[in-house]
Amino acid sequence: MEREEGLARLADLGFGEEDAQTLWEHFDDAERRGKASHGHSRIPWLETQVEFDPKARPVLVERREGFTRWDANGTIGYLAVGNAVSRAIAEPPERAELVVVERSYPTGMLGHHVRRLADAGLVGVLTATSPKRLGPPGGPKLTGTNPLAIGVPGGVVTDVSMGAVTWGDIVSGFATEDELVPFGGEQWHKGFALALGLQLLVDALVRQPGHGAVLLVARPESDPVPALLELGIRLPGTGDRRE
Amino acid sequence: MEREEGLARLADLGFGEEDAQTLWEHFDDAERRGKASHGHSRIPWLETQVEFDPKARPVLVERREGFTRWDANGTIGYLAVGNAVSRAIAEPPERAELVVVERSYPTGMLGHHVRRLADAGLVGVLTATSPKRLGPPGGPKLTGTNPLAIGVPGGVVTDVSMGAVTWGDIVSGFATEDELVPFGGEQWHKGFALALGLQLLVDALVRQPGHGAVLLVARPESDPVPALLELGIRLPGTGDRRE
Repeated sequence: MEREEGLARLADLGFGEEDAQTLWEHFDDAERRGKASHGHSRIPWLETQVEFDPKARPVLVERREGFTRWDANGTIGYLAVGNAVSRAIAEPPERAELVVVERSYPTGMLGHHVRRLADAGLVGVLTATSPKRLGPPGGPKLTGTNPLAIGVPGGVVTDVSMGAVTWGDIVSGFATEDELVPFGGEQWHKGFALALGLQLLVDALVRQPGHGAVLLVARPESDPVPALLELGIRLPGTGDRRE
Repeated sequence: MEREEGLARLADLGFGEEDAQTLWEHFDDAERRGKASHGHSRIPWLETQVEFDPKARPVLVERREGFTRWDANGTIGYLAVGNAVSRAIAEPPERAELVVVERSYPTGMLGHHVRRLADAGLVGVLTATSPKRLGPPGGPKLTGTNPLAIGVPGGVVTDVSMGAVTWGDIVSGFATEDELVPFGGEQWHKGFALALGLQLLVDALVRQPGHGAVLLVARPESDPVPALLELGIRLPGTGDRRE
């Protein structure tokens, strides 16, 4: 899909010009990084969704040194988290800040948000919950795929879903629902424990029921990336590999 | 090993009474949870180590709302992180606090530290670096096994090493060094990406070279645990399963 078509279809969904651009940049970043399930295909997908208000705006519930709480307030998650990231970049913490975004879904490719922070010279760690589709084999579904994205300035961003495949892979026809189990192979309990821990972290920090995002933003004190890059190996986030 | 013998041997290593008790509780907690490689066997192991000063004390480098930085200052990691946890429990943040502990190694079973926070009614997320023993197959070793522990009040604590086995397993003879690869099976790149992201997170936040620990402490706003426990399934941290 070309940029012009994407922006036009997002405008038809009711998004204002700036929001449409933010969404396009997210989907196009995912597309270029080989994460097609988070990419352009999300525009026709959005056209089938009804549970967002393209004119809604996140509400700043609380801001103090080291902590910010947002309520997405009907804003689609991509934009609610994008807005929290923009605010953290515009007014970065002196040292570190925990940012909670309540009722925020879907948040897309978390590496995209963290990369924006990294490009602005900030360390970022982000997780977000989603519908409960992971559980122990044969057991109840207890957690979302709950990815964890970590980025530092210098271009290395890791972004790992705790599912062996993503829901987006299924929506896009790249995988079947049966394949959506915790990653880890024989050690699936590790992928599941990470998903469960992240689920509880988010669920313990929000005040309202629903999916949420938890973001840590910090100022770096050291730059560990050049020594890594000198090794000349391919690192997560520097190519188009699907993590 | 019995408590009396453990405490006596720790005292012989030069640790004061309170530190010896802190160490014993850590090792005994690990032993009882089936993590023998972090358990009593660490006392004879400590007897072979020289790089710690049993009389050293961590130095508080900086404390402000939402952020604390410690320098372990020669204190063994178990005690340096244990001290940071004790301080966070004694003076918990209003909302959240990022705690960096520099030059801190070894930190032991991270779930132990996080469980202390959870038992005190706080949410905790902890990672810590260690010697570089993980890398892509056939490639250089780039990261520690860099576990991630997450706990919330109510007794569910997850603690996942990014290695298929731990170094402790090797030290204790439970595994061979060849088995120390990123966990994930065919999706080893996910375990490796998590280890690398956590390595960069810690390395970007410390000011001095060396291993370090990064801890997030937050006040919970909700209690997601009872609904989970009602399901009656075995959850990480509630039994003795080795995660």
